[in-house]
Amino acid sequence: MPKSERFLQACRRESVDATPVWLMRQAGRYMSEYRALRERYSILELIKTPDLATEVTLQPIRAFNLDAAIIFADILPILETMGLDLKFVKGDGPVISNPLRSGADVDRLATPSPEEALGFTLQAIRQVKTELAGKVPLIGFSGAPFTLASYAIEGGSSRNYMTAKTLMYEHPSTWHKLMAKLATAIGNYLKAQAEAGADALQLFDSWVGALSPADYQEYVMPYSQQAIQIARSGPKVPLIHFGTGTAGILHLIKEAGGDVIGIDWRIAFEAADRLLGPEVAIQGNLDPIVLFAPIPEIKKQAAKILDAARNRPGHIFNLGHGIHKDTPVDHVAALIDFVHEYSLKERQHP
Amino acid sequence: MPKSERFLQACRRESVDATPVWLMRQAGRYMSEYRALRERYSILELIKTPDLATEVTLQPIRAFNLDAAIIFADILPILETMGLDLKFVKGDGPVISNPLRSGADVDRLATPSPEEALGFTLQAIRQVKTELAGKVPLIGFSGAPFTLASYAIEGGSSRNYMTAKTLMYEHPSTWHKLMAKLATAIGNYLKAQAEAGADALQLFDSWVGALSPADYQEYVMPYSQQAIQIARSGPKVPLIHFGTGTAGILHLIKEAGGDVIGIDWRIAFEAADRLLGPEVAIQGNLDPIVLFAPIPEIKKQAAKILDAARNRPGHIFNLGHGIHKDTPVDHVAALIDFVHEYSLKERQHP
Repeated sequence: MPKSERFLQACRRESVDATPVWLMRQAGRYMSEYRALRERYSILELIKTPDLATEVTLQPIRAFNLDAAIIFADILPILETMGLDLKFVKGDGPVISNPLRSGADVDRLATPSPEEALGFTLQAIRQVKTELAGKVPLIGFSGAPFTLASYAIEGGSSRNYMTAKTLMYEHPSTWHKLMAKLATAIGNYLKAQAEAGADALQLFDSWVGALSPADYQEYVMPYSQQAIQIARSGPKVPLIHFGTGTAGILHLIKEAGGDVIGIDWRIAFEAADRLLGPEVAIQGNLDPIVLFAPIPEIKKQAAKILDAARNRPGHIFNLGHGIHKDTPVDHVAALIDFVHEYSLKERQHP
Repeated sequence: MPKSERFLQACRRESVDATPVWLMRQAGRYMSEYRALRERYSILELIKTPDLATEVTLQPIRAFNLDAAIIFADILPILETMGLDLKFVKGDGPVISNPLRSGADVDRLATPSPEEALGFTLQAIRQVKTELAGKVPLIGFSGAPFTLASYAIEGGSSRNYMTAKTLMYEHPSTWHKLMAKLATAIGNYLKAQAEAGADALQLFDSWVGALSPADYQEYVMPYSQQAIQIARSGPKVPLIHFGTGTAGILHLIKEAGGDVIGIDWRIAFEAADRLLGPEVAIQGNLDPIVLFAPIPEIKKQAAKILDAARNRPGHIFNLGHGIHKDTPVDHVAALIDFVHEYSLKERQHP
């Protein structure tokens, strides 16, 4: 069975020769090849120059035995295309200098087509597909409505999402208008990525775990659903729906949609398996910080996840969140090879 | 039924006239009376001067219809008594300038008796008890081993606990030695607070939700258990075991011990009820940011929790984490009164 098929087969809950593995933020600062490029270009330059985005996307594919590539991009440029001023400030992360605070701010948001607004990423997808030549599938992605709304309203990262939640409670009609605009933009962007050649899509709702289940259901879920429905009106590719801190809302994340549900390490794989049932595949769920542990501990923790997933059709091994910038590269290689070797052996001697 | 009994009855899962309510960090910056004192004294001066700690503890009891007081203190001074240099830096929160990084650092930790090390808080407990004269019960508290270890190793707050977790994985024997020392100090401190007159105790494992269930079980749970066992060797008072982000480890938190399990808003009350079963009471679980919402929304969300807890003996209403410093005071009063009125009506017309 050619390696290029493993990832998509697992997304479809078909049997595989070995468990496929990729790592969120696998193209990034922990790699010296990436840091070398970052000395010459800003993050936004890398993202907006298709040749550079293509190169960065391929760096981890050359270095490791990964089962999927993910296009090098970021969840925030879509907000820039809607009229928000985005900067990445060293030490502070993303900063939006004109955050949304009123209904008028939301009314002013532009809704350009993905091709005119984010054509650089669509072009990078086409180039990466050509370069990969079927070696491994390519994942496209977008931030989800809540996570993008939180940045757009807070103006950057947040500890407790007070400004975003307060707008949600105080001005629900403004909130709902914003979420509907975001859902449309996100859905169209995902669909355009599949049309450009992405073999799978991931919706990142990284910060959705800040919400109570009832608030998720009322203020967020309809818009994640809407974005997924629009994405699904394009080419039929698997959709991964990911969030962190979602142990208490996994059933709702599943209800919102996705062929694969991405989980973090704060829930046991077995518990997520029980909550989600056999109708979806599961992606996860090693704590990214475990990659700083000695290799035997990394293998022990990976084996525990693989053991828990053993009898489940549809497991894609991944971290529970993005890989940390200081992660030792040899630990990454050891993890990826171990996932293949261990799961291959499991399948040969069931 | 006198109001002073409600909170302790709910802790023991006995029937009550109305649902008791208190708020984590109820003595604090959202109150103008507190801010007035903070203009003249630092946080550590307020904590270490029994007359001032007594005054601050009583401020919310005078202002609101609360069912319990909690001694004004902080989880970190116990680390100071063990030899760590603690400062509260404006904007940055707590900073420890000599964090633990090695086995030798852990070996050097002192283990003074609670009376010599934290006598100021024990004295404040005695004074508050006298002042309260049985009006409402008084809660004593301590940080739990993991949460204190994370501050001691990271040197302050952390986003991903990388330094603490890396020490845990790379030097497990140092980790276990540290956790055993902390468990003993914490257990003794809780016991001393009960001996000084605290009517209940709360173990704050605020950051434990950063761990995977397997890591919690291996590296943390035995020490929370040990601290609770030592506390239980003192006067028989209810113990509340609290953490945030615990939806995936609630069964383990319960196994570690506690008469009451404190939950945050990231899990539906009903789901926590099912996971925890009838053997423990539950404290929680309104999102503290909901207090910034208009009062009708606050009432709607509080009613939802009270409805879910309706048929459960043993519910103490609280936020899912500490109250935010900018919370409107009239919203706090409205919440507290609503919890009583609504639950009283529920019980009269079941």
